[in-house]
Amino acid sequence: MCIRTIGLGVQRDGAYAEYLTLPATNVWVHHSDVTPELGAIFDPLGNAVHTALAFPLVGEDVLVTGCGPIGLMAIAIARHVGARFIAATDVSTPRLELARQMGADAVVDVSREEIRDAQRALGMREGFDIGFEMSGAPSALPAMIDNMNHGGRIAMLGLPTGPFSVDWGKIVTHMLTVKGIYGREMFETWNAMGAMLQTSPVMRESISRIIAEVLPARDWEKGFAAAASAGTGKIILDWTEL
Amino acid sequence: MCIRTIGLGVQRDGAYAEYLTLPATNVWVHHSDVTPELGAIFDPLGNAVHTALAFPLVGEDVLVTGCGPIGLMAIAIARHVGARFIAATDVSTPRLELARQMGADAVVDVSREEIRDAQRALGMREGFDIGFEMSGAPSALPAMIDNMNHGGRIAMLGLPTGPFSVDWGKIVTHMLTVKGIYGREMFETWNAMGAMLQTSPVMRESISRIIAEVLPARDWEKGFAAAASAGTGKIILDWTEL
Amino acid sequence: MCIRTIGLGVQRDGAYAEYLTLPATNVWVHHSDVTPELGAIFDPLGNAVHTALAFPLVGEDVLVTGCGPIGLMAIAIARHVGARFIAATDVSTPRLELARQMGADAVVDVSREEIRDAQRALGMREGFDIGFEMSGAPSALPAMIDNMNHGGRIAMLGLPTGPFSVDWGKIVTHMLTVKGIYGREMFETWNAMGAMLQTSPVMRESISRIIAEVLPARDWEKGFAAAASAGTGKIILDWTEL
Amino acid sequence: MCIRTIGLGVQRDGAYAEYLTLPATNVWVHHSDVTPELGAIFDPLGNAVHTALAFPLVGEDVLVTGCGPIGLMAIAIARHVGARFIAATDVSTPRLELARQMGADAVVDVSREEIRDAQRALGMREGFDIGFEMSGAPSALPAMIDNMNHGGRIAMLGLPTGPFSVDWGKIVTHMLTVKGIYGREMFETWNAMGAMLQTSPVMRESISRIIAEVLPARDWEKGFAAAASAGTGKIILDWTEL
Repeated sequence: MCIRTIGLGVQRDGAYAEYLTLPATNVWVHHSDVTPELGAIFDPLGNAVHTALAFPLVGEDVLVTGCGPIGLMAIAIARHVGARFIAATDVSTPRLELARQMGADAVVDVSREEIRDAQRALGMREGFDIGFEMSGAPSALPAMIDNMNHGGRIAMLGLPTGPFSVDWGKIVTHMLTVKGIYGREMFETWNAMGAMLQTSPVMRESISRIIAEVLPARDWEKGFAAAASAGTGKIILDWTEL
Repeated sequence: MCIRTIGLGVQRDGAYAEYLTLPATNVWVHHSDVTPELGAIFDPLGNAVHTALAFPLVGEDVLVTGCGPIGLMAIAIARHVGARFIAATDVSTPRLELARQMGADAVVDVSREEIRDAQRALGMREGFDIGFEMSGAPSALPAMIDNMNHGGRIAMLGLPTGPFSVDWGKIVTHMLTVKGIYGREMFETWNAMGAMLQTSPVMRESISRIIAEVLPARDWEKGFAAAASAGTGKIILDWTEL
Repeated sequence: MCIRTIGLGVQRDGAYAEYLTLPATNVWVHHSDVTPELGAIFDPLGNAVHTALAFPLVGEDVLVTGCGPIGLMAIAIARHVGARFIAATDVSTPRLELARQMGADAVVDVSREEIRDAQRALGMREGFDIGFEMSGAPSALPAMIDNMNHGGRIAMLGLPTGPFSVDWGKIVTHMLTVKGIYGREMFETWNAMGAMLQTSPVMRESISRIIAEVLPARDWEKGFAAAASAGTGKIILDWTEL
Repeated sequence: MCIRTIGLGVQRDGAYAEYLTLPATNVWVHHSDVTPELGAIFDPLGNAVHTALAFPLVGEDVLVTGCGPIGLMAIAIARHVGARFIAATDVSTPRLELARQMGADAVVDVSREEIRDAQRALGMREGFDIGFEMSGAPSALPAMIDNMNHGGRIAMLGLPTGPFSVDWGKIVTHMLTVKGIYGREMFETWNAMGAMLQTSPVMRESISRIIAEVLPARDWEKGFAAAASAGTGKIILDWTEL
């Protein structure tokens, strides 16, 4: 929350520097159940946890717009903590297939399908209670607002790619909440991530699906190229194989 | 929250009908400390209470955009429940004068002044913690967003008079919450209003200021004309004087 | 919460009367996923849900003292909504075996084992975050208090079988919360129970374990005798077989 | 909350040592509105704020058992943040007189009066919503429990002077919450205290009443003797007058 936050890799050198110092409080010791590969993606997983836990999810119907790695992880987390129905949207078939594997009950290719039809297919009658906007696409939030229940709550992590207008009258009269999410509560999310991965084989399997490839560090150029191509999951560089 | 709400005076006859039925649960017995005049404005006061108590206010800096009757009442409520600084905006000098009387520490005529200057005059350094958007004006919410602290929370009761865009990137990166407010929690707000008026002479005096005129019911045409003219407070019709 | 609550089967005739009237608002229509047998135990399941959801459980370590039907169901619920470790206590081996099947990571026969040893076996270092006191036994709450982490929160549904003293100094200095639980929030718990059973085969299987026997209604004497004997689960009378 | 907290003046040298080091994060810069005398009692005032803000107070009826300095400050804080009725108990007439000056609507000398009579005198019909146990006396919590409304919440700061039993059945069936309070959230309470004193002349006046005497530091023996005698407020030593 601090307006003068100094973030590692943002306002000061991160892990691409040859030498890195960081405050002792930024060091987290993993449980032995957490593999180094899973440990390597605790930053985006922490964003997913922070977004997914922004509102209570027990028994709630959840809409996730955008199935990049963080959106996909948020699906697994919502499942893990007791959401009722989870619907996910994207425009990529492989990502939507992954969304199903993470636990989505319905997936919607918004290039040719309507979220409202997914609601109907699930037997929903009033709209989603919770929304996670993970895409930043200007069309996503307005579509989400159209599909929320009265009193619905939206956590918005996707950084908008451009300006857009929404139906503010609906936000007011449907009593919706939109909460911007940025960064994460470091200690809270470390603790929650550790607990989830430690006790749930399903979570370990789900989150592992986000790791597209583990490469020796010497193949970093290949890794960066893979990471730059849309549609892929996380690429891990293994520094024990220089 | 019910998506099939039936409101008195909205989806079924209200108090302008010759005969009115209402569910027994909709009847509230006032404490003797509450005059009939104050009792007559428990509906808008309830909206103000519902909006003002949407987020905890103790020690928080509050910005109120729009000083119509509900905005003015929200100022008094924020003061009553322990806010730190309260700043209020409008374009009408008499309304801003009323805002001061209700307890605002700073008032801003947005037709010629900047909210940021009010912050500075109050010695604030990070922005407002809480915002009440009470105007519906397309310029109000964007200006409010520009003046919020990180993690700031906005309750939005003003029904937008038209579409408008906001800086969504700021909502995300400044971790702002925007919560649409409509209607009120009937029992909670009745109770809170009663308690405030019962124990606080300051509240009774502040809320009474919202009552512009009490007219015998036979002078209803004069009353409606007064209510229709901008800038005035609430007009009460006294039905004991037909 | 009402101090003048009139409960069906408590302050007015319940389902053992020949004829029963009840307010329309007390009728709940089950999803088709909920079998009549599961529907029949929505009252104790509602108590379990109400107790288990008294505090957020994601990633928390939970201690359940007392493995009667409601305690057992609370274990399954805590598992369903993302608790980390769950430990359960009782003095009955079959009940503790059931506790394991419901998802407990550790079980403690308090007639001969220490809760503290279960903590150690699980690798816990600071105590439980959440406690559910489900036994009413005078020894249970003091033992729970001794095993809580600082800031731990206890939901207490078990009606004490007699007076007992606790270490109030520890409640204060360890900043513990003890919350009495009675009845349930009817609509909230109906909704949560329906959602859990509708989407989770594990929950359906777990909660079904609580049903010890389904008997034709004509065998009610056998059913009451079974229900009266300690250690058994819920007995269902099937009224389609008079 | 940390189970390994190291407190200044508790687990390491405090301000009675000749030289004192403290972490930079433990330094707080006061607003100019806060006199050095008020600044000197920010520690107990912080305890009072932490206790009083443990639960929302707007429109609630509050019972404070024990009118030592922290109990008295809690009365002023409850008033400041919008409680409805405040009743206070003690066995000392001067302390109960101070309680009235801090804003209590009713005071009860429990050596000869009943809390229940104070409820009746205030026109209360269901019991207190919120309790602050500030005395540590074994008779205080049981009497408080007897006078709470269903769902009432108790913050307990008073360190018990001995073991005692309570009516646990009432805690369960009346759905009461008892929350142990120890220390304070340093940053939250600093901020809240500063805000209250900065904007409210009433608060400044009320909290100043807690200061019984300001003595030059050279008269420390007189000061310690006064502090040791029951019934007095806080004694301030002025180190500019060695």
